[in-house]
Amino acid sequence: MTDLQAIVEEIHASLSPRCGEGKVADYIPQLAHVDPQKFGMAVVTVDGETHLAGDADEAFSIQSISKVFTLTLALGKHGEGIWKRVGREPSGSAFNSIVQLEQEAGIPRNPFINAGAIAITDLVLAGHTPKEAIGEVVRFLRYLADEEDIIVDQAVARSEQATGFRNFALANFMRSFGKLDHAAELVLGVYFHQCALAMSCRQLARAGLFLANSGTNPLTGHRVVSHLRARRINALMLTCGHYDGSGDFAYRVGLPGKSGVGGGILAVAPGKASVAVWSPGLNENGNSLLGSLALEMLATRTGWSVFGA
Amino acid sequence: MTDLQAIVEEIHASLSPRCGEGKVADYIPQLAHVDPQKFGMAVVTVDGETHLAGDADEAFSIQSISKVFTLTLALGKHGEGIWKRVGREPSGSAFNSIVQLEQEAGIPRNPFINAGAIAITDLVLAGHTPKEAIGEVVRFLRYLADEEDIIVDQAVARSEQATGFRNFALANFMRSFGKLDHAAELVLGVYFHQCALAMSCRQLARAGLFLANSGTNPLTGHRVVSHLRARRINALMLTCGHYDGSGDFAYRVGLPGKSGVGGGILAVAPGKASVAVWSPGLNENGNSLLGSLALEMLATRTGWSVFGA
Amino acid sequence: MTDLQAIVEEIHASLSPRCGEGKVADYIPQLAHVDPQKFGMAVVTVDGETHLAGDADEAFSIQSISKVFTLTLALGKHGEGIWKRVGREPSGSAFNSIVQLEQEAGIPRNPFINAGAIAITDLVLAGHTPKEAIGEVVRFLRYLADEEDIIVDQAVARSEQATGFRNFALANFMRSFGKLDHAAELVLGVYFHQCALAMSCRQLARAGLFLANSGTNPLTGHRVVSHLRARRINALMLTCGHYDGSGDFAYRVGLPGKSGVGGGILAVAPGKASVAVWSPGLNENGNSLLGSLALEMLATRTGWSVFGA
Amino acid sequence: MTDLQAIVEEIHASLSPRCGEGKVADYIPQLAHVDPQKFGMAVVTVDGETHLAGDADEAFSIQSISKVFTLTLALGKHGEGIWKRVGREPSGSAFNSIVQLEQEAGIPRNPFINAGAIAITDLVLAGHTPKEAIGEVVRFLRYLADEEDIIVDQAVARSEQATGFRNFALANFMRSFGKLDHAAELVLGVYFHQCALAMSCRQLARAGLFLANSGTNPLTGHRVVSHLRARRINALMLTCGHYDGSGDFAYRVGLPGKSGVGGGILAVAPGKASVAVWSPGLNENGNSLLGSLALEMLATRTGWSVFGA
Repeated sequence: MTDLQAIVEEIHASLSPRCGEGKVADYIPQLAHVDPQKFGMAVVTVDGETHLAGDADEAFSIQSISKVFTLTLALGKHGEGIWKRVGREPSGSAFNSIVQLEQEAGIPRNPFINAGAIAITDLVLAGHTPKEAIGEVVRFLRYLADEEDIIVDQAVARSEQATGFRNFALANFMRSFGKLDHAAELVLGVYFHQCALAMSCRQLARAGLFLANSGTNPLTGHRVVSHLRARRINALMLTCGHYDGSGDFAYRVGLPGKSGVGGGILAVAPGKASVAVWSPGLNENGNSLLGSLALEMLATRTGWSVFGA
Repeated sequence: MTDLQAIVEEIHASLSPRCGEGKVADYIPQLAHVDPQKFGMAVVTVDGETHLAGDADEAFSIQSISKVFTLTLALGKHGEGIWKRVGREPSGSAFNSIVQLEQEAGIPRNPFINAGAIAITDLVLAGHTPKEAIGEVVRFLRYLADEEDIIVDQAVARSEQATGFRNFALANFMRSFGKLDHAAELVLGVYFHQCALAMSCRQLARAGLFLANSGTNPLTGHRVVSHLRARRINALMLTCGHYDGSGDFAYRVGLPGKSGVGGGILAVAPGKASVAVWSPGLNENGNSLLGSLALEMLATRTGWSVFGA
Repeated sequence: MTDLQAIVEEIHASLSPRCGEGKVADYIPQLAHVDPQKFGMAVVTVDGETHLAGDADEAFSIQSISKVFTLTLALGKHGEGIWKRVGREPSGSAFNSIVQLEQEAGIPRNPFINAGAIAITDLVLAGHTPKEAIGEVVRFLRYLADEEDIIVDQAVARSEQATGFRNFALANFMRSFGKLDHAAELVLGVYFHQCALAMSCRQLARAGLFLANSGTNPLTGHRVVSHLRARRINALMLTCGHYDGSGDFAYRVGLPGKSGVGGGILAVAPGKASVAVWSPGLNENGNSLLGSLALEMLATRTGWSVFGA
Repeated sequence: MTDLQAIVEEIHASLSPRCGEGKVADYIPQLAHVDPQKFGMAVVTVDGETHLAGDADEAFSIQSISKVFTLTLALGKHGEGIWKRVGREPSGSAFNSIVQLEQEAGIPRNPFINAGAIAITDLVLAGHTPKEAIGEVVRFLRYLADEEDIIVDQAVARSEQATGFRNFALANFMRSFGKLDHAAELVLGVYFHQCALAMSCRQLARAGLFLANSGTNPLTGHRVVSHLRARRINALMLTCGHYDGSGDFAYRVGLPGKSGVGGGILAVAPGKASVAVWSPGLNENGNSLLGSLALEMLATRTGWSVFGA
């Protein structure tokens, strides 16, 4: 057993007694059914080693973590032109706030708040039917993780579709400013499916590994994005990846990361590893409570931080 | 001539023709007198090498860059307890905005917007007269840079005192919420002097070097802060160091940094070097236009980025 | 010819040269086709006299003026209980702002901004199909004006339906807070039809006459609402009837009124008369430019004002 | 005993058991000492009759009610030009909010929120020393009420001066936008004194009587302002006189009014009477709880309302 495996296991063991803390997301009915005791961790290093603990092989709803991957897709399709549709500044407000959208005439602050991610999905949808776009997103995740058994949880997608009034508000609001090319129904059809992707910690860590390795997946050798783009996506994750808790995450963990209300967090230690954690209980900023703590402990024990040795 | 020296000189040479672009800060009358053609760069590596270009030895008003150093002082005095008085999230608004201060009952978003820096200065002032506190700040900078000829530009300090109505508004506003221990006049007396510190690029880069070297100044061997604290200050600089342009700076430059309206920027490449640039013309976010570009070029040519190779 | 007839004609004559000033609403494509030269006035006194000038018999899209009548309907159906769903304070912001809706958790500020009117329409819809509710609104207007030829302009209704993204955003936003009982599509189906009611100045002045006569239409003898309720609806028109121009209208005109982006304004001089004006060019607050001026002149010449002789 | 006297006494008697409800303002220490059981009413008719009940002859701190009188003074001095410095729209936010001041670049929404009243006081101060301006305000009140024993409560004025941080914030904020001609200290010196004017209900009702009588004080025959200006001041009181409770007051009471945190309210029934009530307990909008109820009952029993019979 390597040192890293020991660290992962220790973190899991020391936090396990706190499983159940935090608040499971309930605004999507289907998500509220998740077992709050679940807790998984996966660390995949750029050398190809995999370290797992707990429920690391159980699929969960990745929700907003999908925004990292659709951003990567949109950058591939449209290049830096996407920044006409979305900013890259932290929002200083909640994940689903509509206030800044009004002040800034339909241009969301960044691609990792809901409005921004919807704008990005609108760009991914260009030239496609919603069904094709969903297929493209799923295939992209399978390609990144190099695993075929990644699917959309249709029950979650339907649940989001039926109750996602806030997202319908955001999409229609952007459309009222002429900042959405497709009808709200079409864009959200894709958006709800990307959020409903079900992946395990292991799959997620593998899918994000290219960001830890200068744009190339070391497991497959696929060059996903350039050096520069990998850095830039990491920069966005660091400044904007945790809604209005991004500054705190950077302060405590010191790694680029992206959370989802399903309780997952993907974190990237450049040059070192890709990390995925999952625990459904959320803190007041909507980020996984135990997941954040696990990453803070991992950063402390490994010394991984983008901000210095 | 080392490669790094060549890079610094090339960047300076290639940007010099654009000197005068941007808008010199004029809200403090004394700052408006600065020659817009000034342009200096200094890179001091953790190995102790110094690389200069242009007006690197001319003193300028460091303004908000001082916030990094008073934060360091306040953390030394009060530890993590300071976070009861100030947050650590990006603000999503301008450097002198008062809106969030109302919504959040007198707790500024972070120590690098004006309100937050005033709250930090209030903590530095604890147990001191304003004159003593100013002396402490000046001595701290001299200690960090290991240079004695660092002084406060009294004309600038007086100019700020006479026209700093917005800062008086911010301070009184916090005091109305009981979030300032001292009278606005006293706190701002110190604040205006810290902002009026006059330092050269070389001095500034030396003063910030401990942040690039895990908390210890490699030139003097002084351990200024712990590893962890150095990382955390860097994290705050990255997420909050450039007001509402922090996300963009992280995206383009990829290094922790702090700008001032005097046209200076201090940037930190952890494990590599401390960098200071100065050019008075500002971009629309209030950050040095040429300074930002110089740092972006430096990051590109050296490969320095906290977000990966 | 009575004095009042002379006043109405003089006002019309003196303002007619300015027809075409202001900006015709173009956010609903169908409204943009209106002839900007149109200008009509109708004054119907509580004694039953009618004074007309210009295009007083030409039907136009009453738009937001309909909010007065659906509020009256909702108060009849649900009484003062409606105030659980909507406030009665001026908003201090634009007619279609979504900001306060976020701050106040889906409770619109008052029934005369779009969000509030949609909430009111949701209440009118209770127990009905959209088609029935539309029928009820049309019949209510015919009853009030005692005229049968009041209809919905289906082209305008369709145009609003196709382009009313902002209203879809508002409705979905309220629904996300659980503050709308029916699906956004159903509520807006009714809302767009009520806004598309086509009425002439004469018809509109007659329909509003009950508000000038303590709740009873003096032309028909129908008691529409109680004394108290008539006063209260007038109070809401005065404080909230012109979006973020309500204070200015009260200052200059001094009468309760409600404007619509179709260029109409209904004003009430309690104990005296009901007045309707129509001129499509709007001022910067979205209220009829000439219509506001005509009412100001009328108030000056007649001495009508709720604020004193 | 006239009917009106009976009504006033009945209202006082029926509400007296509730004395002590609401929250006495405590943000100015000196105000917190007031006896919460105090309750006075005064109605002075345009015919010159005076009807009193309870503590109608006891002086209290008129606080923001003074804004009506300084507005009258400023209009007299500068005419309609004052509207370059202050708007006349309801604010949609709390009495001391600074948010809109930022959005609207230092122009307060109306003369009855704190920022707006400070801007008005700045205009009253033009050409005077603070001491002279305070003298002018006091003399104006004595002239209006035709009573000499109206004074400033110096203890209250000092208390406000020592703790009025929010007002210092507002004043400095406006000054930072160049929207205040005098130093914050000077303007607030006057402002705190005008707020500290001590007047009884009887005095206050007399002082406001010109607003009920088309600009002329019927007791003295002094023409204070023109017909038109009296109406306009009434209009401002109706739309903006009760901070973010103005709409509710118009709905329930239906008369122009202005409240103060000292627990007083001045209300105007045009053509009928001037009314002053005082009870220190405040409701959630910062307006006198019992005072509002007393005025609502008075309006109901007398039928006084600007919105119809």
